[in-house]
Amino acid sequence: MNAPAVLPVDLDASATTPVSRRVLERMMPYFREEYGNPSSPYEAGERAKTAISEARASVASFLGCESREIVFTSGGTESNQAAVRSALRLKPERRTIVLSAIEHSSILGLAPEFESSGYRVRRIDPRADGRIAAADVAEAVDSDTALVAVMWVNNETGAIAPVAEIAGIAHRKDALFHCDGVAAVGKVPVDLSSVGIDSLSLSAHKIYGPKGVGALFVRRTRTFHPLIPGAQERKRRGGTENVPGIVGLGEASRESMEFLASGTDALKRLRDRLERGVLEIFPDARRNGPAEEDARAPHMTNILFPGMSGEKILWSLGKEGIRASMGSACSAGSVEPSHVLLSMGLSRAEALSSLRFSLGRHLTEAEIDRTIAVFGQMAVTIGRRVS
Amino acid sequence: MNAPAVLPVDLDASATTPVSRRVLERMMPYFREEYGNPSSPYEAGERAKTAISEARASVASFLGCESREIVFTSGGTESNQAAVRSALRLKPERRTIVLSAIEHSSILGLAPEFESSGYRVRRIDPRADGRIAAADVAEAVDSDTALVAVMWVNNETGAIAPVAEIAGIAHRKDALFHCDGVAAVGKVPVDLSSVGIDSLSLSAHKIYGPKGVGALFVRRTRTFHPLIPGAQERKRRGGTENVPGIVGLGEASRESMEFLASGTDALKRLRDRLERGVLEIFPDARRNGPAEEDARAPHMTNILFPGMSGEKILWSLGKEGIRASMGSACSAGSVEPSHVLLSMGLSRAEALSSLRFSLGRHLTEAEIDRTIAVFGQMAVTIGRRVS
Repeated sequence: MNAPAVLPVDLDASATTPVSRRVLERMMPYFREEYGNPSSPYEAGERAKTAISEARASVASFLGCESREIVFTSGGTESNQAAVRSALRLKPERRTIVLSAIEHSSILGLAPEFESSGYRVRRIDPRADGRIAAADVAEAVDSDTALVAVMWVNNETGAIAPVAEIAGIAHRKDALFHCDGVAAVGKVPVDLSSVGIDSLSLSAHKIYGPKGVGALFVRRTRTFHPLIPGAQERKRRGGTENVPGIVGLGEASRESMEFLASGTDALKRLRDRLERGVLEIFPDARRNGPAEEDARAPHMTNILFPGMSGEKILWSLGKEGIRASMGSACSAGSVEPSHVLLSMGLSRAEALSSLRFSLGRHLTEAEIDRTIAVFGQMAVTIGRRVS
Repeated sequence: MNAPAVLPVDLDASATTPVSRRVLERMMPYFREEYGNPSSPYEAGERAKTAISEARASVASFLGCESREIVFTSGGTESNQAAVRSALRLKPERRTIVLSAIEHSSILGLAPEFESSGYRVRRIDPRADGRIAAADVAEAVDSDTALVAVMWVNNETGAIAPVAEIAGIAHRKDALFHCDGVAAVGKVPVDLSSVGIDSLSLSAHKIYGPKGVGALFVRRTRTFHPLIPGAQERKRRGGTENVPGIVGLGEASRESMEFLASGTDALKRLRDRLERGVLEIFPDARRNGPAEEDARAPHMTNILFPGMSGEKILWSLGKEGIRASMGSACSAGSVEPSHVLLSMGLSRAEALSSLRFSLGRHLTEAEIDRTIAVFGQMAVTIGRRVS
């Protein structure tokens, strides 16, 4: 396999991000010099333990919660599944689970198992613009609802859910509210001191931290039943802690806080530039997702190219070193259309003609312009398809 | 906290090991340059996927199994728990679980949960020398046994279990045999082509790989029910793969193979030198564990210092930069005596007077001699305690 001759343009930052230089530097000592097991009672162990405490404080400060509310895990999938399974154990007498139909596969994928063990799973479709409406959640939640799970930012369209309202709806019926925060954290302000979420998941590798580590916020007022029991993490997650990974997540959190504090206007401008450029070239293309600026995350756009094969566009972009995707990387490899787009009312053909572009922090205007130019060449090549 | 003025001597290599230089070098490109998500359909994703395949082949070759029999996980604890839970789902009609009483806490800790959900858990005590006897397992296993779990090498005494015999015993009753291989892999020859184990766990950070990654061998003839479902790892373990960690485990496996191929005689000589030196200084001290050379792993010795506080000895060693432990790091922090030593028939007092010394690959004779010298000083200081 030969790498493309040009430098890659990464418009798939929602699939994963590189570890930032600063994060990696911070991790490095913990591989070889400070390699102690945090459970060891001598100084090398104590230093590893301290490093974990510092990382925990960083993540907590980033999310607006307390250190003791953070459990380190192996990633977003484990965090989501641990939270959902724990919630169900807290309310065993309740037999209904309310999920958005646009949840990540790590949550939606558990639904058949829950159904076969006697749960009723109510899946809430988004509105046509990809947003979950609070009114639709309110209609589905009742006194039999154990758990409501709605992700904060959708990982395919960038649509933001009204999570504060949904928390209120869940709590009025005494149900728990788990929120998948993987696509939200580092992109939109997440302040758990002002939103009544009971548990929230995040993943380090989506915010320039390492793969293989994540966190789960569990509100201190809620009991947590571990998915992987053991002595570590105050008995909330067994197994020797991934010290370098956790240190990396701590630093990635600090870096993300600074990034968000400096504003996302530049990112939005690049996103809008890309959209405008592409929609000018393909006039019958259109955007999947909310129209209102405050209903969408700043880093993502999902575009439908009617009559065109998304896969072929991806291939043409790939030849030029431009990375994008047809949806979540976690379901890539499948030829199935995106469940998110289908639930918004798109046809199979439309879903298979849609692409997700997600912008990272270091993307430049020049890279956007090069991408637009490649789309321009594509339009010429396949001229007959352009209306 | 001040670091000791002298270089540390690590006699706690069973708690964790530093990432070897060679392993870290191999991992490095996957943090920033080759950061693709293995599920992404473009070249950067393909390269990450290939790296994982190569690591899988290395682990498989190290263990004497096929690549498709290896599932990457977040570590030994997850591997153990996933294997045990999967096994129980395979034989739901059977309600007995046979465990050795010297299993790691990641397995023993699940017993109360299994018992409260209706399982009968039979715990097999080791003989006085710390070994699990095949005859005792045979007596406990019957046609109601779903699962037998006995670790290959005990992580506190180094005692080796007769795993091939135990596999035969389990299979004659059509029960599954899970083997915790965390303390065995890299220390004793593990060849899964010649031993009928159904599943075996391992952890990278015990063999000079990174923390936060491990593997589970699942024999191809056995169905596996994932603990963390998802599309990755051929639907056996969900979540974006920890690419650098997995690459690190692959390299650590290759390095461990080479280490074992060159023989462990040097390690045994150092271990024996330490034992001899300590037992000469404390004539009433004695070794906990098997007497026969072929019943013990080469890297570990567990010594009982009658009438002395293990904690105080650890503290005295620690002051001189020498690291050892009172048992598994995973239960450190607790003041409880080792469950392993108690199950061998030691009293509480004896267990709290016992220390584990585990030797790493790079330990030198000079370090052993310095340790013996520190014990010598200790004996002078607490002269009244020496018989």
